Amino acid sequence: MKGNLFIISAPSGTGKTTILKEIIGHIPRISFSVSHTTRPAREGEKDKVDYFFVSKESFIESRDHNDFLEWAEVHGNFYGTSKQTVMEQLEQGNDIVLDIDVQGARQLRSSSLEAIFIFITPPSWQELKKRLTGRGTDDQTTIDLRLKNARLEMKDAELYDYVIINDDISTAVDVLRAIIIEKRCKNRRAPNGTPLTLADLT
Amino acid sequence: MKGNLFIISAPSGTGKTTILKEIIGHIPRISFSVSHTTRPAREGEKDKVDYFFVSKESFIESRDHNDFLEWAEVHGNFYGTSKQTVMEQLEQGNDIVLDIDVQGARQLRSSSLEAIFIFITPPSWQELKKRLTGRGTDDQTTIDLRLKNARLEMKDAELYDYVIINDDISTAVDVLRAIIIEKRCKNRRAPNGTPLTLADLT
Repeated sequence: MKGNLFIISAPSGTGKTTILKEIIGHIPRISFSVSHTTRPAREGEKDKVDYFFVSKESFIESRDHNDFLEWAEVHGNFYGTSKQTVMEQLEQGNDIVLDIDVQGARQLRSSSLEAIFIFITPPSWQELKKRLTGRGTDDQTTIDLRLKNARLEMKDAELYDYVIINDDISTAVDVLRAIIIEKRCKNRRAPNGTPLTLADLT
Repeated sequence: MKGNLFIISAPSGTGKTTILKEIIGHIPRISFSVSHTTRPAREGEKDKVDYFFVSKESFIESRDHNDFLEWAEVHGNFYGTSKQTVMEQLEQGNDIVLDIDVQGARQLRSSSLEAIFIFITPPSWQELKKRLTGRGTDDQTTIDLRLKNARLEMKDAELYDYVIINDDISTAVDVLRAIIIEKRCKNRRAPNGTPLTLADLT
């Protein structure tokens, strides 16, 4: 039985990474998709585990063959999600999480891709400001940019199948987990992702 | 935001009642639909809480006006689920559970009713036999009849949106709860059933 593809977006500072950490590794048979990148591997990063590290030429060829679900160029490096990699994992009955921004999600939404689109939001504007400032990792210019982007991204929330408000982290994790379990049940799979075996009638 | 209607069926001995007890009363804003009946109230039963107690004439008039989602005659008494009662509760943003047999569910499935159909099954035939015998409440003839009915009912499992195997009670409750929470999130409601308020952008 095929796995499900979850497309998850959130404005910066919403707590998406924390929520996903509570899901991946705690629920069996769900993992992040492994992206392709042209940037060099950092110390400790493993090919095919952290990324598929590929040459610029190979990346561009794949891109031009329409082999990526989505791709982006960041600081001169390419990053992309290979259709084939995702499909192979789904065929094996594993669920895949694709953590992408609103713009990437919008593109996938208008494609024929079968996926579940989930948007995570902060509970309020004030709270988002507080969280971005409280992290202490960004200067004011960066914070202002993140807030401006959040404002734009919030407008797209309605494009998503589900909107989860991250007011309380454990509630947000519980809702995301419920969506994953519900999709498995809908696909006639058990909560752990294995196929259901119905009671024999003999 | 409107509530959801859950139609739940299970062969006798599957543990449906135990599972539903763990849901109703533990999750806010979900309750059983209150049925109409022509049988007299038993001691302690309250009108409009346990049942709507009505006369046979009134029941038949309603039935002939097509006012019931489903109805049945059992030992000379009529039982039915009023469309209006269910719709009123859904409009108030409450989720409703309708606990009916496979035959009733099949009728509703082929109607235009918007509902979520959930089938609960025993993990195996042997286990069902064991449970029915272990209850000690039924004689062998009744057990055999229940087993025969279960065999027929299992054939209809595929008509349902979801199939939950009750191998382990807490897992079965968890899956049913996940479906309820997922539907709320899909309807832009919080897990407790209240409408979501998205982050203000001012």
